[in-house]
Amino acid sequence: MIPRYSRPEMSAIWSPETRYRIWFEIEAHALDAMAELGHAPKSAAKAVWKRGAWDIARIDAIEREVRHDVIAFLTNVTEAVGPEARYLHQGMTSSDVLDTALAVQLARASDLLLAGLDRVLAALERRAREHKATPCIGRSHGIHAEPTSFGLKLLGHWAEFARGRARLVAARAEIATCAVSGAVGTFANVDPRVEAHVAQKLGLAVEPVSTQIIARDRHAQYFATLGVIAGAVERLATAVRLLQQSELGEAEEPFAKGQKGSSAMPHKRNPVLSENLCGLARLIRGMVAPALENIALWHERDISHSAVERVIAPDATIALDFALDRLAGMIDGLVVYPAAMLANLERGGGVVHSQRVLLALTQAGLSREAAYRVVQGSAHAALAGQGSFRELLARESEVASRLTPKELGALFDLGYHLKHVDTIFQRVLGTKTKPSPSPTKRKRG
Amino acid sequence: MIPRYSRPEMSAIWSPETRYRIWFEIEAHALDAMAELGHAPKSAAKAVWKRGAWDIARIDAIEREVRHDVIAFLTNVTEAVGPEARYLHQGMTSSDVLDTALAVQLARASDLLLAGLDRVLAALERRAREHKATPCIGRSHGIHAEPTSFGLKLLGHWAEFARGRARLVAARAEIATCAVSGAVGTFANVDPRVEAHVAQKLGLAVEPVSTQIIARDRHAQYFATLGVIAGAVERLATAVRLLQQSELGEAEEPFAKGQKGSSAMPHKRNPVLSENLCGLARLIRGMVAPALENIALWHERDISHSAVERVIAPDATIALDFALDRLAGMIDGLVVYPAAMLANLERGGGVVHSQRVLLALTQAGLSREAAYRVVQGSAHAALAGQGSFRELLARESEVASRLTPKELGALFDLGYHLKHVDTIFQRVLGTKTKPSPSPTKRKRG
Amino acid sequence: MIPRYSRPEMSAIWSPETRYRIWFEIEAHALDAMAELGHAPKSAAKAVWKRGAWDIARIDAIEREVRHDVIAFLTNVTEAVGPEARYLHQGMTSSDVLDTALAVQLARASDLLLAGLDRVLAALERRAREHKATPCIGRSHGIHAEPTSFGLKLLGHWAEFARGRARLVAARAEIATCAVSGAVGTFANVDPRVEAHVAQKLGLAVEPVSTQIIARDRHAQYFATLGVIAGAVERLATAVRLLQQSELGEAEEPFAKGQKGSSAMPHKRNPVLSENLCGLARLIRGMVAPALENIALWHERDISHSAVERVIAPDATIALDFALDRLAGMIDGLVVYPAAMLANLERGGGVVHSQRVLLALTQAGLSREAAYRVVQGSAHAALAGQGSFRELLARESEVASRLTPKELGALFDLGYHLKHVDTIFQRVLGTKTKPSPSPTKRKRG
Amino acid sequence: MIPRYSRPEMSAIWSPETRYRIWFEIEAHALDAMAELGHAPKSAAKAVWKRGAWDIARIDAIEREVRHDVIAFLTNVTEAVGPEARYLHQGMTSSDVLDTALAVQLARASDLLLAGLDRVLAALERRAREHKATPCIGRSHGIHAEPTSFGLKLLGHWAEFARGRARLVAARAEIATCAVSGAVGTFANVDPRVEAHVAQKLGLAVEPVSTQIIARDRHAQYFATLGVIAGAVERLATAVRLLQQSELGEAEEPFAKGQKGSSAMPHKRNPVLSENLCGLARLIRGMVAPALENIALWHERDISHSAVERVIAPDATIALDFALDRLAGMIDGLVVYPAAMLANLERGGGVVHSQRVLLALTQAGLSREAAYRVVQGSAHAALAGQGSFRELLARESEVASRLTPKELGALFDLGYHLKHVDTIFQRVLGTKTKPSPSPTKRKRG
Repeated sequence: MIPRYSRPEMSAIWSPETRYRIWFEIEAHALDAMAELGHAPKSAAKAVWKRGAWDIARIDAIEREVRHDVIAFLTNVTEAVGPEARYLHQGMTSSDVLDTALAVQLARASDLLLAGLDRVLAALERRAREHKATPCIGRSHGIHAEPTSFGLKLLGHWAEFARGRARLVAARAEIATCAVSGAVGTFANVDPRVEAHVAQKLGLAVEPVSTQIIARDRHAQYFATLGVIAGAVERLATAVRLLQQSELGEAEEPFAKGQKGSSAMPHKRNPVLSENLCGLARLIRGMVAPALENIALWHERDISHSAVERVIAPDATIALDFALDRLAGMIDGLVVYPAAMLANLERGGGVVHSQRVLLALTQAGLSREAAYRVVQGSAHAALAGQGSFRELLARESEVASRLTPKELGALFDLGYHLKHVDTIFQRVLGTKTKPSPSPTKRKRG
Repeated sequence: MIPRYSRPEMSAIWSPETRYRIWFEIEAHALDAMAELGHAPKSAAKAVWKRGAWDIARIDAIEREVRHDVIAFLTNVTEAVGPEARYLHQGMTSSDVLDTALAVQLARASDLLLAGLDRVLAALERRAREHKATPCIGRSHGIHAEPTSFGLKLLGHWAEFARGRARLVAARAEIATCAVSGAVGTFANVDPRVEAHVAQKLGLAVEPVSTQIIARDRHAQYFATLGVIAGAVERLATAVRLLQQSELGEAEEPFAKGQKGSSAMPHKRNPVLSENLCGLARLIRGMVAPALENIALWHERDISHSAVERVIAPDATIALDFALDRLAGMIDGLVVYPAAMLANLERGGGVVHSQRVLLALTQAGLSREAAYRVVQGSAHAALAGQGSFRELLARESEVASRLTPKELGALFDLGYHLKHVDTIFQRVLGTKTKPSPSPTKRKRG
Repeated sequence: MIPRYSRPEMSAIWSPETRYRIWFEIEAHALDAMAELGHAPKSAAKAVWKRGAWDIARIDAIEREVRHDVIAFLTNVTEAVGPEARYLHQGMTSSDVLDTALAVQLARASDLLLAGLDRVLAALERRAREHKATPCIGRSHGIHAEPTSFGLKLLGHWAEFARGRARLVAARAEIATCAVSGAVGTFANVDPRVEAHVAQKLGLAVEPVSTQIIARDRHAQYFATLGVIAGAVERLATAVRLLQQSELGEAEEPFAKGQKGSSAMPHKRNPVLSENLCGLARLIRGMVAPALENIALWHERDISHSAVERVIAPDATIALDFALDRLAGMIDGLVVYPAAMLANLERGGGVVHSQRVLLALTQAGLSREAAYRVVQGSAHAALAGQGSFRELLARESEVASRLTPKELGALFDLGYHLKHVDTIFQRVLGTKTKPSPSPTKRKRG
Repeated sequence: MIPRYSRPEMSAIWSPETRYRIWFEIEAHALDAMAELGHAPKSAAKAVWKRGAWDIARIDAIEREVRHDVIAFLTNVTEAVGPEARYLHQGMTSSDVLDTALAVQLARASDLLLAGLDRVLAALERRAREHKATPCIGRSHGIHAEPTSFGLKLLGHWAEFARGRARLVAARAEIATCAVSGAVGTFANVDPRVEAHVAQKLGLAVEPVSTQIIARDRHAQYFATLGVIAGAVERLATAVRLLQQSELGEAEEPFAKGQKGSSAMPHKRNPVLSENLCGLARLIRGMVAPALENIALWHERDISHSAVERVIAPDATIALDFALDRLAGMIDGLVVYPAAMLANLERGGGVVHSQRVLLALTQAGLSREAAYRVVQGSAHAALAGQGSFRELLARESEVASRLTPKELGALFDLGYHLKHVDTIFQRVLGTKTKPSPSPTKRKRG
C-alpha cells in the first residue's frame, strides 16, 4: 500500500524485519521441541536462540542466487549460529514457516484493526449519546420521510460496526492457526508435537489437517470480512457526504485550522475525507475476489496464491487500518448543525407530519379519501412555497371543523417520533452508562 | 436461476406462493400483538386468520395498477377478509414486511444449504475413512512430491466443508432478524412489542436498531459466506478434474449406466460434473461484489439494493444448493482406482523416496553434497526411463558401500509416510467412530 | 433474469425456440456446404430444409435420456426429416453448434442494446439542447462550485453513452465469429469451406483459429464492455437521485398519472427508477468477474464456462436492455425545475461568484491576501444567513473603494460562465443541427 | 506494487519524479498558450521553462502544511522561478493537471505493455512455427480427444494475445485525452485553445466535454481491458502448468542453470513461474471492479476515485508489465518434449483414432451399432492395459473381414489430423513468412 494510506504500526507488521523475526521464532521454537523430543541436541537449540541473527541485505543477496526466500534466510542464520544451525528446519517445509508466519502477521494486524474498530465505536457512541435527542429529518430515497434523531442515525452505524467487530474476531480465529506438518502435510519427518509447541508459543491454534499448506478458505473468509467492514465504512462516509451537501448543511467534516477547501473559492469546504474513505472501501472490496479465487489450489498445493497474498495481505489490512483511523477522527470531530437539521425538518412548515394529520382527520370522522385529498393539497402547496403546511391546513374548513388549533398543533410534536429512542439505545448499548472503555481494555468477542 | 441448476425444494422458498404466505403471517402475527395491546379489536385479528386469503393473479393485476407490491397484496387480502382487514399493517411500512420476509426465506434457504453441506460431509467422511490407508502420491505444483493417502486428501476437504458449515450457521444467525419498526425505524406508530411478538413467532431475533430497513452488512456477510463455500466446492471439483485426467486416471466421476462421454469417441469419459461445479462456483462468487456494494445505502434507506437481492438471493442459494447436491452425489459415487494411484506413485521406481535416501546416506557418513549428487543422478536417470530409481541407486558404489539392500529397501516403505494418518483423522473427526448421522439428526452449530 | 426486469424482444433471443432455430440453421447451412463440396447428397440438404422440424417437449424428453442437448436436438430433427438427416453434423462437434449459436444470439442482443443506447442518446441530446442555456450550479464534492448549464451536464452523459455505443460496436464484432472446425479445431473431418459458408449465411466472421471452441477472451471483453456501460447508467441515475433530493429539488423522475409515492405520506415522490437503475448496474457489473474467470479454460477446452454463460449471457443482456429502456424513458420525461436551479445557484446571494470577485479585487490593486480575507469574510457571513454576498461585499470599504456597484454587479454575470457552452456542444455533437435520427436509421460504428 | 513484481522502466513512469515532470510540462505548455493568446507575458512563459525546477522533499514539506499536492508543487516551482510564476495555472484547476498527467502516464504505460505484448507475440510465433508439425494429443476436459499439433496450440494463444494487443491500442486511445477546462469544465477562466495546445504538445486528444475531470468510463474500459489480457496470460500459464505435470511431462518451464526445484527432493521441477502468473492475473482482475465502481461520481466530480487510482493505476500496469515479461521469457525458453507428446498420444495403442476406425467400419458396411460395440470394446481393453488398440482391433473378425492391415494402419495416420494446420496458420499469421519484427518496428493497430 502506498505510504499516503499507511500508518506506521500496521506497516511494521509487514516489514521484512518483522517477517524474519517471526520466521526465526518459528524455527527456534520448533528446534526447542525437537530437542525436547530427543530429535536434536538441546545445545543446538540454545545456540540458535543465543547466536541467532540475520541481515536483510545479506538475505537478499543470497536469495538472488538461490531464488528461494526461506533457504536464503536459513543460510544467513547459519552464518551467524554456526554448525549447530544444521538442526534447524529438520523435516519441515518452507510452507510450515511461511503459512505460520502469515497467521501471526494477520493475527497481529487483526488486533490493530480491532483497536481501530474500537476507536470508531467509541467515537460513534459518544456522538450518538450526545445527539440522542437532536431531532432531524429521516430520509428515504433522499426524500424527507419522518423525523428521527441524529443520535439514532449514529446508533445504527454503531451497531453495524459492532457486528463488524464480532465478525473480525471470528475471522481472526479462522486464520490464527499453525501448521508444521512437513511435505504434503503427513508429518513423515516432523513430529506433531513440534507443531503443538510452536502453536502454543505463538498463540495460535493447531491446524488439524494441512496439505503442506493451510487451506485458503480461511484466508478468503478473512478478506471477505474485511470487505464487509469496508462496506460499513463506506455507508457512514456516504452519510456524511450526503449531510454536508451545500443544500443540506447538517454536518461537516472537521477542518484543520487554516486548511483551505479551495485556493480559488474561499467558501468551499469539501467532504474529502469521506470521499477518500469511499475510495478506500472500493479498493478493499476489490481484494475479496482474488482471495476467493485463491481457494481452489491444485492437489496438495500450488503457489498461485502467493503473489495475491504478498500484495493483498498488507494492502487490505493497511488500507482498512488507515480508513478506520481516519473515520474515527472524522466522527470524533464531526461538526454537527442542529439548527440546520431543524430548519430542514421544518421545511414547508411541517409537511413531514402529514401522516399524523391524515390519521387524526380519519379518527375525527373524515373519510380516508377526503382526508387524503385535503392533506395532500396543503402539503403540495406548502412544498411549492405557498405557505406553511400547518397554516394552510388550519385554513381548510374540513380541518378546522374537526380539530382545534391546539389539537392540530399537537400533531406537529417531534417528541411523538422520538419517544422510543431511549428504548432503542437500551437495546443496542445495553446497560452501558458511559462511553466504551479504551480499546486495550475492551474484552474481545 | 435457470431450471437446469435448480432443485424444487429450494426454488419453492422463492416462489410467489411462499413469499405471500410469509407476508400474510407477518401481518397476521403483528395484528395479534396489536390486538393483545389493545390497539386493534381481537375480533379483527381472528377474522384475518380465519378468512385471510390471496390470489397471485389478482395481486399481479392490482400491482400493475398501483405499482406497489405490498399494497397490492394487502388490497387483495382485504377483498377476502372484509372491513376488519383495515387494522392490518397499522403503523408499519412495506420494509417491515419485505425485510422480515427475506429473513425468513434466507433462514429457510440456509437450512437446506446446511442439509446439503451435511450430505457432502457425510460422503466425504465415508470415502475418507474408506481410503484412509490407500496410498497415493501427494502433489505440489502438479508435480510428484511425497506419498500420502487418498483418505487424507478427502479429510482435508471434509475439514474445509466443516468450517464452511460453521460459517453458514453464523451467517444464518446474522440474517435471521425481524424488524417491525415503522417509518425510519422509530416505532412512532407501532409498538416495539409488536416486533417482539412477530420475531418470536417466526423464529427470528429482534433487529436491535433498524432504519426502516435492516442494515445490509448482514446480507453482505451472508453472500460472502456463500462465496467462500462455493470456493470449497471448486477446490474439490478441481481435485477430481485433475485426478481424472487421461494420464493420471486415479479417480473418475460416476457414470450413469448407458451414459456416453462422446457420440463420436467411445472411450471418452469427461469430468463434466466437476467442471460444471467450477462454473457454478464462479457464478456464486460473482454475486459477492454486488452484495458488498449494497451496504452503503443512502440515509435511512434507498431501494437500490432491491433489484440486486431479487436476483441474487434466489440465484445464489439455488445454485449453491444444486452444487452441493451434485457434489455430494459425485463424491458418493466417485470411482477410485487405487492401482492407478500406486502405479503413478511408483513411477520411475520410487523416485519420490529420494529425500529419505538422501538423509540415510548423509547419516551413513556421506557428505550432503556427494549424497545429493548421487541421488539426483539416479533420480533423473529413472525419470528419463533408464531404469528403476531403486535399482539404479543399488548400482552406485557410494550407495552400495553404505546401505545393505535391505536397508535401502526399507527407505521405500510407504508406511513411513502414513504413520500419522490416524492421528490426523483423530484430530479432525474426533472421537467419532462411525459415519456421520443423517442431516436431519445432526445438531447444527 | 426475472420477468420484472425483462423485455419481451430481448427475452425472445434467449428462448429455447430461438436457440433451436439457430441450431437448425447452422446444421442446415453446413449441410448445404457439404453437399456443394460433394461430401453429402444435395437431396439430403434439400430434405433437411424442407422437412426439418423439432419439438421442445420431445427434445427435453430425449435429453433426459441421453444427457446431451445437441444429440437430443439432432435425434428429434431426424425423427422429422427421416434417414437423410444422417448427413447432418458430419465431422462437427457440439461446440461448433453451441458457440456459433451463442455468437448469433449475442450479436442479436447487441443490436437491441445498440437500439437502446440510441434511445438514451436521443433523449439525452434532446434534453441537452433544450437546457443548453438553463443555468444551474456545478457541484464538486456535493458542494457548490461554479455555475454551469443543465444542458452541459446532460451533454457530458451523452458523450459517455456515445463512447459506450462505440465500445459495444467493437465488442459485438469481437463475439460475432463462427467456428465449424470439428474436434480440437483441426478440421480433420470437416472442410474449412463449410465454416466459411455458415459464417457468411449467418452474418458472422470466420474464427481464424479455434480449439474446438471459440476462445473466451472475446466473451470476457464483451461482458466487461456491458459492465462499463452499466457504469454509465449508474452515473446518470445517481445524478438524478442527487438532483431530486428534497433540499435540491432541481429535477424529478416522471410520475405516472395517479401514481403514489407513499400510501402514508402524500407529499412523497421518490426517485425509485434511478435507484433501481443503480441496483441493476451492480448486478451487471457483478457478471464481469465470472466472465473474466471463464477465459483460462484447460487445454483445448473444458466446459466450466458453460454454466456461467447459460446464466450471464441472458441475464446481462436482458438486464441492460431493460435498464437502457427505463433510462431513456426517464430522461425523456424528466421533470426539470429551472427556477429551483436558479434559486440554489443564488443561495447566499451569489457566493459562487467569489472567485471572480477575488480576481477583480486583485486586478484592482488589492493584495491577494487582503482580497481573500474580505471575500472569505463576506462569503461565510452570507452562507451563515447574515445577508446577501453581493450586498455584504458592497458594504466593505476595500471593495467599495475599488469597484463601482456596476462593476461589482458585472462579476455576478452568469453569461460569463456559459460563454463556451456552444463551443462544447459543437465539439461533442459536431455539425448535427437536429435531434438524432431514430435508432433504426442511425448508422452503426 | 511490491518490488518483487516491478520492472524499473514501468515503475519509473509512476515515480514522483516523472509525475512532477509531467505536471511541470502541462503548466508550462499551458502558459505558452496563454502567452500566445495575450493572457500572460511571453517573458513569464520563457522564465518558467528556463528556471522551472522543483524538489520532492520540499514539495512534501509544503504539502504537509497545505494538504494539497498541486498547490504544494506550484509553490515550490514559484520558489525557483520567482514572481513570474504567478501566471502559471491561471483559470485552471488541479484536475486539469492531475487528469491530464494521468493520461500521459497511462499512455506511456500502455506503450510499455504493447512492447511486452509484442515480446509475447514474437515468442509465441517463433515457437508456434517451430512446432507447427509437432504432433500432440488435443485434450478436452483434460481427457484425450484427437491429435493436433503443439504449434497449433500455441497459435491459438498467439491469436488471443493479438486480440489483446488490438484491444489495448483501443483502450490507450480512450484514456489519452487532455482536459484543461477549469472549474466544472466550462472554460470560464481558461481559453479552449490552451487545452488544444497542451494536448498537441503531449500527444493527447482533446477531451470534448469534461466536468472539471475526465469521465471515468474511459479508465474503467482501460482497466477492464488489462483484466482481459491478464486472462490471456492465465490461460497460457495454465496450459504450461497442465503440460508440465509429472504424468504428462510434455513441456517444462526453463530452469536457470543450477536452480533447485526443492532443497529436499532433487528430482523436482515445479512450474512456479506459471503459477505466479496465475496469481498475478487474479490480482489484476481484482482491480477491474473498483475501476467500474469509479464511474458513478457525483455531479461534476467527487474525489472518491482518487484513492483507487493512486493504487491501481501503478499496480495494474506494473503487474501486467512484469507478467508479460515473465511470460515472454518463459515461452521463449519453454522446454518442449515431442517424444513425450507422442508417447502420450499413442497411449493405449492409438485409442484416440477410435472415431476414424468407427467411420471406416461403417463405410465398409458394418452397422453403426455393431461398429460402435467392437471399437468401444477394443478401446476400453487397450486403456485397461490389455494390449494395443490397433492390435486388439486387428484380432476382431468384424474388423479383419472388412479392413486389410494396410487399410487399418492408414486410419492411424497423424497426418490426417494435421492436414489443415498450414491453412490455419495462414489464416492467423497471414502472409508473414518470418518471425515478427522487434516491438519498436511493429506497427500498432
